[in-house]
Amino acid sequence: MHPGKAALAVLTVFGTMALDTTRTPFRTEVRILGGAATFASLSACVFTDTSMIAVIGDDMPEENISALKSRGIDTRGIVKVKGGKTFHYDSSFDYNLSNRTTLKTELNVIADFEPVIPDAYARSKYVYLANNDPRQNIKILQLFDAPRLVVCDTIEYWIQTARPEVEKMMGRTDGVVINDSEARLLCGEVNIARCAKKILSLGPQFVVIKKGEHGAVLFDREGQVFPAAAFFLDEIADPTGAGDSFAGGLLGHVARKDRLDFRTMKEAVIYGNVMGSFAVEDFGVKRLLSITKDDVEERYEKYRNLVQF
Amino acid sequence: MHPGKAALAVLTVFGTMALDTTRTPFRTEVRILGGAATFASLSACVFTDTSMIAVIGDDMPEENISALKSRGIDTRGIVKVKGGKTFHYDSSFDYNLSNRTTLKTELNVIADFEPVIPDAYARSKYVYLANNDPRQNIKILQLFDAPRLVVCDTIEYWIQTARPEVEKMMGRTDGVVINDSEARLLCGEVNIARCAKKILSLGPQFVVIKKGEHGAVLFDREGQVFPAAAFFLDEIADPTGAGDSFAGGLLGHVARKDRLDFRTMKEAVIYGNVMGSFAVEDFGVKRLLSITKDDVEERYEKYRNLVQF
Repeated sequence: MHPGKAALAVLTVFGTMALDTTRTPFRTEVRILGGAATFASLSACVFTDTSMIAVIGDDMPEENISALKSRGIDTRGIVKVKGGKTFHYDSSFDYNLSNRTTLKTELNVIADFEPVIPDAYARSKYVYLANNDPRQNIKILQLFDAPRLVVCDTIEYWIQTARPEVEKMMGRTDGVVINDSEARLLCGEVNIARCAKKILSLGPQFVVIKKGEHGAVLFDREGQVFPAAAFFLDEIADPTGAGDSFAGGLLGHVARKDRLDFRTMKEAVIYGNVMGSFAVEDFGVKRLLSITKDDVEERYEKYRNLVQF
Repeated sequence: MHPGKAALAVLTVFGTMALDTTRTPFRTEVRILGGAATFASLSACVFTDTSMIAVIGDDMPEENISALKSRGIDTRGIVKVKGGKTFHYDSSFDYNLSNRTTLKTELNVIADFEPVIPDAYARSKYVYLANNDPRQNIKILQLFDAPRLVVCDTIEYWIQTARPEVEKMMGRTDGVVINDSEARLLCGEVNIARCAKKILSLGPQFVVIKKGEHGAVLFDREGQVFPAAAFFLDEIADPTGAGDSFAGGLLGHVARKDRLDFRTMKEAVIYGNVMGSFAVEDFGVKRLLSITKDDVEERYEKYRNLVQF
């Protein structure tokens, strides 16, 4: 790697890195590579130079770090805690792969992480705060010089246990990417247009509400709206990481174009859909480890033809 | 009306005509004009010559029939039963206008209707069997000469009480338009792509699964798929009739183009969305009574711009 420009991150992703045990009625995989930051980074790295910040224990197999490196991801920000255990998430899906039941959540090294970033990351232009403790997210943001765009996600757990910090975090970001059910929980509203207004009132310039198999809707402060149907798949292997891969594709496209206009944001939502559709085709991160830029562009065009009328 | 060509129906709609009592937390309207055939016809008549078949009691105010006539709908197929009472449906919506609770369903004259059609309807090229007893639908189909396209809808009530007849009816149609929840109930599947395959295996050439605020998906026997996001509305007044208006717009556009290719079907799904979006803007059929062709085309273009990327 060239010591100058190439060493500076374009997009930095901070969030969980995990060992997942995922069970479907058809297959079970034990302690495979997972986590919000992992999926988001593996998705974003198809588009732009991507750096990761995460904390792991020394039970994380070295081959998983190698897999990230093999995709060109800068892993200098991954902190290994000696004697620590990696975040472990165990869940099972029902027959329709639409409802997930959490069997075990072991935060382990995640719980006490004090965010640090390599110097080379401080000048990142784009920052994605994948699902994580909002207090850690707020802290880490202070370590960056002046990112052009900061986007965050959150989940039910943080809304339930740290709502004021979730709202404070959103107030310090430019964009929020969030599931419909979590947007409803956060805002106390069923109508997602109203949820979007409430989230925008916290401070961000835009919000993308992810609706799973029903696609996603982008809202901005000027009142612009972009509803996008999901890419249509007959069969999925494992829905884990779809939302994180969506966010990675969205941030990745915005970063490579280095533009924030609404047209770019619309394209970014579609690239998000495309990356989510790849993620669910195989277990864990498997499919994301093999896709190429061409695969992505081909599916983007396929999507365009699909929804065109 | 010219006694020749104009007296022959292009599109005939058969289904319920009702007096609805609709309650939302914001407003209640008692015994207003409703019913699946009413919404579908008022929607379709913006596109093409539309004829209605329905049965009413003599409690149906004459001004409601006049309202249909004022929109150019051929009402000769509406049978008034002397001393009979019109189908009455009383329901209430929750605060979010997304969940409906049925308070009362009085079938009245609907229950014993023996389908008849005016001679002028027999040569209809397009027939829409709006939600109704599948046995009546099967009977009435035999009264048409040779329609080019027959499309039906159905609801939970008929799936629960007359499943074999629902399946038989679908086997005699070219297309099915159905809600996602009812498709799932009919097929015993959550995945709507799998539901679509099961419905297609009954005989029709295409199926449109309506997903309410999440839009609709068109599937055909060749494996072509068209997912369409819903038109995005901040506020709705009354969701009653959205699905029937969708079907009316779909059939209306197909009939006016007189084409059945996939491109036309895609456009028809969008016109369906557009008509559904108008229907919910005011109580009952009120909005549909005032829209013009220009309103429809304008919103179609607005939708195209909205979803374009």
